[in-house]
Amino acid sequence: MTLIRSWLPAANDAACPFPLNNLPCGVFSVAGGAPRCCTAIGDKVLDVAALAAAGLVAVPPGTFDAPAWNAFMAHGPALWASFRAELTALLGEGSDSEAAVAQHLVPLAEAALHMPMTVAEYTDFYASKHHAMNVGTMFRGAENALPPNWLSIPIGYNGRASSVVVSGTEVRRPWGQVKGPDDALPRFAPSARFDIELELGAIVGQPSSGPVTVAEAGAMIFGYVLLNDWSARDIQAWEYQPLGPFQAKATATTISPWIVTAAALEPFRVAIPPREREILPYLEEALPGLYDIALEVGLTPEGGEETVISRTNYCEMYFSAAQQLAHHTTSGCSMRVGDLLGSGTISGPEKGNRGSLLELSWGGKEPLDLPGGLTRSFIADNDTLTLRGATKGDGYTIGFGEARGKVIPALEHPYER
Amino acid sequence: MTLIRSWLPAANDAACPFPLNNLPCGVFSVAGGAPRCCTAIGDKVLDVAALAAAGLVAVPPGTFDAPAWNAFMAHGPALWASFRAELTALLGEGSDSEAAVAQHLVPLAEAALHMPMTVAEYTDFYASKHHAMNVGTMFRGAENALPPNWLSIPIGYNGRASSVVVSGTEVRRPWGQVKGPDDALPRFAPSARFDIELELGAIVGQPSSGPVTVAEAGAMIFGYVLLNDWSARDIQAWEYQPLGPFQAKATATTISPWIVTAAALEPFRVAIPPREREILPYLEEALPGLYDIALEVGLTPEGGEETVISRTNYCEMYFSAAQQLAHHTTSGCSMRVGDLLGSGTISGPEKGNRGSLLELSWGGKEPLDLPGGLTRSFIADNDTLTLRGATKGDGYTIGFGEARGKVIPALEHPYER
Repeated sequence: MTLIRSWLPAANDAACPFPLNNLPCGVFSVAGGAPRCCTAIGDKVLDVAALAAAGLVAVPPGTFDAPAWNAFMAHGPALWASFRAELTALLGEGSDSEAAVAQHLVPLAEAALHMPMTVAEYTDFYASKHHAMNVGTMFRGAENALPPNWLSIPIGYNGRASSVVVSGTEVRRPWGQVKGPDDALPRFAPSARFDIELELGAIVGQPSSGPVTVAEAGAMIFGYVLLNDWSARDIQAWEYQPLGPFQAKATATTISPWIVTAAALEPFRVAIPPREREILPYLEEALPGLYDIALEVGLTPEGGEETVISRTNYCEMYFSAAQQLAHHTTSGCSMRVGDLLGSGTISGPEKGNRGSLLELSWGGKEPLDLPGGLTRSFIADNDTLTLRGATKGDGYTIGFGEARGKVIPALEHPYER
Repeated sequence: MTLIRSWLPAANDAACPFPLNNLPCGVFSVAGGAPRCCTAIGDKVLDVAALAAAGLVAVPPGTFDAPAWNAFMAHGPALWASFRAELTALLGEGSDSEAAVAQHLVPLAEAALHMPMTVAEYTDFYASKHHAMNVGTMFRGAENALPPNWLSIPIGYNGRASSVVVSGTEVRRPWGQVKGPDDALPRFAPSARFDIELELGAIVGQPSSGPVTVAEAGAMIFGYVLLNDWSARDIQAWEYQPLGPFQAKATATTISPWIVTAAALEPFRVAIPPREREILPYLEEALPGLYDIALEVGLTPEGGEETVISRTNYCEMYFSAAQQLAHHTTSGCSMRVGDLLGSGTISGPEKGNRGSLLELSWGGKEPLDLPGGLTRSFIADNDTLTLRGATKGDGYTIGFGEARGKVIPALEHPYER
């Protein structure tokens, strides 16, 4: 796949995250105005709600009435494809609509970006083998690192949709029940082991009732976002047996403001690494199920400079989003437009590829060195954590933007108002 | 508290589940018409949407536009109280509005009942000590029955809101990954250990952002429903480590069509049984946190007669709904109008008080005897399971109606259409 050239020069730069090949879905506002659906092109935001109102693109009435892509997604894959084709024609080199379209462009630098969709429900998975091995080794020893079911099931659990926030939202360090190994009883205290999880989130764009195949599940996925599933490791350690993580994962989950569509990622499919155990037929996938998406995490202390603490790739997963979604429906569970599926923390084989501080600092035993003599085992107050992701085509880049969050200090008392 | 007499004779019968003291919130339709918000009184349904349209009750415009109580709940406790007072006056003995109100009554027997609200998110807890002891003893032995955190934390996990259905909805036996203790690998098969969980569901009627106290949480709870959290024990056993139940609990959760308000239950408060371990101050509760609600489960084989297989009481809980909700917010997790919180399976001290077949049949080792020489360890195809609940005042009953579901056979192949 090569660059599709636009009449917007900035969109043709090989390093620009938003060439015509991307056309991600977002929601923007300017100067405190009402939020509206948009895409990004070059260094601009394109107001697609205005474009539809002007009759420049054909979408059913009401599609962009709300500042969220849910209604658009609900219309289904035929509209997804025709809309993408229309935008490509309008913004492409040689378009005769340049003047009409240009009226609806806003500099990206002037746009505030909001949640791109309403999250219906949020599910998080645990499907990177390096991550599962690292965490399992720390908690259960190397021999018992992988749970017996791990190679057979895309392990998942339901998260809390109300806690999903867009990049830039501050995240307050949570309070919770914590108990040290030598404490007789738990204490109620701010989390001292607050952490990130570097993930990709898949967005369900079509509903289902009853079980769906992996191929059907793949066709239901509208696109992907960067996702940071903030995790309080000390709260998690005490609460998670026997029914899984709960308050440890409910403070916030930060996503990027741009949904990169499955259509834009299609040229970047890569196969899942070889399996050690045969999977059940219902999970078999005909297409290469992953994408080559380079991911990184930057940590910036208050007033300091950023250090990239992790670099990994979505191709490290052991189960694809389509497999996870198919598994999600086996019980007959209905899926809804706007469901968000976290991939699970994405770690690679090397230390520098680990997708959480828990792994990077090996549970706090090997703190990370940062510039200026600083060290980190977990997140310190006022640190900013930034996830980035991009894939590279021939002379172009498909970017996700950022999933950024600053961790502000815990409330002095959790019930202060 | 004594009976509040109504001009509807049926509402004054001591055995009637819907006296004027109750006034539960539901949604009904007749003869295929549009669903509308209603209450139940005696042997009638009262169309409160019509009552509001006729100006007989004062609610903000639009409150009953949708067939769900979410908008009403969102208006808050002052409206909850004034609306209840208005209905009590309109329906009470000596009301001068009898003729005007009577126009909006429909025989309960002619009404189809629907979901009373839109479920925002669904959380399930694990807070009956007898249940936790029974399950723990089966799985980990009597010495390790209670997890170390159990006496300190209202253990909860997020469930799947899209799977919540109203009483009467058929429940299809799910497929899933199962693995016997002697199998080398899992199989994909219909669940052979499909089960009920007898619970009470608390409905959050006011939103929150940031942690709330137990007292604040109590004031946020609008009312309660019966709740059956259908559970596939064989799927759960293989999938639940390390992140908790997922597909085992996602087939369906059945609730009663009536929300019994916290106001109606107020006279029936009872204290939580004595604690073995002091709880943390943030969980302390000033009011008696439970209610005296008698609960039972009936099992009816296809074409056979019903056997009541369990009788228990909500006062058996170890943590109240207010404590569970307060704990739910400790991390800063936002709560929304329409959030549903399952109490956890409610078991009492005796064998006949157990709230699941897993416990009643002790993991299948002690099958239940039913009339006609039938036995059950778990649910058989075409069995109907019915939860009922009621509390008794002086000469009156507050009933919840039923949470009923028939389990229909699994699909022959899960991907047949």
